[in-house]
Amino acid sequence: MDRQLPYYVGVDGGGTKCRAKLYDHQGELLGEGTAGAANAARDLLKSQDSVMRAVLLAVQDANLTTKVLKNLHVAAGLAGANLPTVQAKMQAWQHPYANFNVTSDLIASCYGAHGGEDGALLIVGTGSSAVRLQNNTFNQYGGYGFLLGDQGSGAWLGRQAVAATLKAHDGIVPISALHHAVLTELGVSQPSELVETMINAQPLEFAKLAPLVLKQAESDDAAALQIVKSGAAYLEQLCHCTLQNSGMSIVLVGGLAPAMATWFSAATKALIIPAKEGPEWGAIQLLLQPDW
Amino acid sequence: MDRQLPYYVGVDGGGTKCRAKLYDHQGELLGEGTAGAANAARDLLKSQDSVMRAVLLAVQDANLTTKVLKNLHVAAGLAGANLPTVQAKMQAWQHPYANFNVTSDLIASCYGAHGGEDGALLIVGTGSSAVRLQNNTFNQYGGYGFLLGDQGSGAWLGRQAVAATLKAHDGIVPISALHHAVLTELGVSQPSELVETMINAQPLEFAKLAPLVLKQAESDDAAALQIVKSGAAYLEQLCHCTLQNSGMSIVLVGGLAPAMATWFSAATKALIIPAKEGPEWGAIQLLLQPDW
Repeated sequence: MDRQLPYYVGVDGGGTKCRAKLYDHQGELLGEGTAGAANAARDLLKSQDSVMRAVLLAVQDANLTTKVLKNLHVAAGLAGANLPTVQAKMQAWQHPYANFNVTSDLIASCYGAHGGEDGALLIVGTGSSAVRLQNNTFNQYGGYGFLLGDQGSGAWLGRQAVAATLKAHDGIVPISALHHAVLTELGVSQPSELVETMINAQPLEFAKLAPLVLKQAESDDAAALQIVKSGAAYLEQLCHCTLQNSGMSIVLVGGLAPAMATWFSAATKALIIPAKEGPEWGAIQLLLQPDW
Repeated sequence: MDRQLPYYVGVDGGGTKCRAKLYDHQGELLGEGTAGAANAARDLLKSQDSVMRAVLLAVQDANLTTKVLKNLHVAAGLAGANLPTVQAKMQAWQHPYANFNVTSDLIASCYGAHGGEDGALLIVGTGSSAVRLQNNTFNQYGGYGFLLGDQGSGAWLGRQAVAATLKAHDGIVPISALHHAVLTELGVSQPSELVETMINAQPLEFAKLAPLVLKQAESDDAAALQIVKSGAAYLEQLCHCTLQNSGMSIVLVGGLAPAMATWFSAATKALIIPAKEGPEWGAIQLLLQPDW
C-alpha cells in the first residue's frame, strides 16, 4: 500500500535548523521532524544531510517505514537557495525520494505566510532578508550573508557586540555592561582570548550572543542600544523597500523577529500581520501544487 | 668561509606580501627578497612558505648559495603573531636556519620606525592596527582581524563598498558612482553575481577594491566619502588611544596609510613623523641584538 500512495513533505531549512512536515495525499499532517542547520550556500553537504535527517524523523513520527522514502514528493525552502548556482547544485542532488524540488526558505515562507496570495515577508533569524510576492513574481531584498549583509540579524548583532567589546578595550568607546556580558558569556577575560575564540566563528556562534545584546538593550545599556537600534533601523528600511508603497501587509518570521520588531515605529508595526500557513505548506503548494 | 660567518635576516610579513633583508655580521645589507602573504594567524603554512621564499630570494640576491641557510639568524615580524598561540606555533616551526625568532609585524615596525626609541606606530594596509613602545613595553591597539575589527583598512574599505553596493541595489541608500565602479571592477552586473563572487572572498580580495573607494571619495562621491571618512575617523581615534597623551610621535606605515591620513585633522597630522628604520631592521635589533 505504502508504495502506491503519494506523500508530500515540506521542508523549511535555515541557518540554525531544518524542519520537515509530512502530509498524505489529502493534505493531512502525519508527522514532523527537526534536524540541524541547512543553509545550502554555506555548506551544501550539511544542508542535504539535515534535509535527509529531518525527513527521516518525519517518516518515523508518522509511523511509516523507510520503504516510503521513494514515494515522497519533497519540496524544500532552504536558506542560500536564492543563489542560482546553489539552487542548481541542490536540484542536482542524488536524493532517495520520488522527486525533490527546492526554492529559497524566504520564498516558501512568503508563499505560506499569505496562503498563496500577494504579500511580503521579513525573516530575522541567524540571517535577515525580505521578499515580496506580487502578480506571481517574487522580489527579494537583503539577505546577502554574514560577511556582506544580514544587518539586524542574530549573527550581525553578535558580531557587532564582539567588535564593540574590542573597541571598548582599546578605549575607543566607553566600557559598558554589554562588554562585560560578552566576555562572561564566552568565558574569556582578555581581548586576545576573545579574538582567538571568535575569529573563525560561524554565524550561528555569533547569533548565540544575540539574546544577550537584546537583554542589555532592554536594560538601556548604551552600547547595546546603539547596536540594536541600528539593526532595527535597517530592518525597518528593508520592510519599506520590500513593500514599495504597494499597500500590502508584511509577515515577520524567524526567532529574532518579535524582539527586533519591538523597536520599529508604530507606522511600521501597523503593516505587520500574522502568518496564515507555515513555510513547509508554502514549499509544497508552490513547488508541487497538490490537489488538496 | 660561508659556514663560519653569521648572517642576519630581517623579515617583514603582512597580509599581502613578505620581504626579507639579509645583512652581514657588520650590518651591511647584502640582499633582499620578496614573496607572498605571510599572515601567520590566517594561514600558518602559507606564512612559513612565504618567509622561506623571501629569505631564499634574499640569499640569491646576495650571491650566496643555499649552503648559507644554516648560518642565518632570522628575525621575523609577522602579521597575526601578536596572538600568543600563533606566535608559539610559528616559534615551533622546523626551519632550516641557525635560529628563527618571531614577533608581530607591528612591534618590529614600531621598533624600527623609532630606531629602538620610545614611540608609536599605525599600520594601514590589508588590515589596520597600532602599537606604542614605552619604557621597553609594547602595547597594542586594534588589529582584531577582518571579521572583528581592522576598521579603516583596505579589506574593510572594500567590504564596506560591496555592502553599500548591495544596500543601494535594494533601494536602502541612493545608487552612486561608487556602486557602478564596484560592479565594473569585479566584472559583474547583478547583485547575485556580486554576492557569489565575494561571499567567500579573502581580505586581500576586498583590499583590491580600496583604491577605487579612495578614488571615488576624492571625486566627492557621497557613498565613498561616508565609508572613507568613517574609516579615517576610526584610525584617528586609534592613533589617540595609542598615544594616550604621552607627547610621543607616531609613524604611519602600510600601503594605504598616506591616503587615509589625508583625511585626518591637522592636529593629528602634526603628530606624524617619518620612520627612521624599516621593520626588517627592527626585527633583527629587537630579537637578535647584533653588535652592529
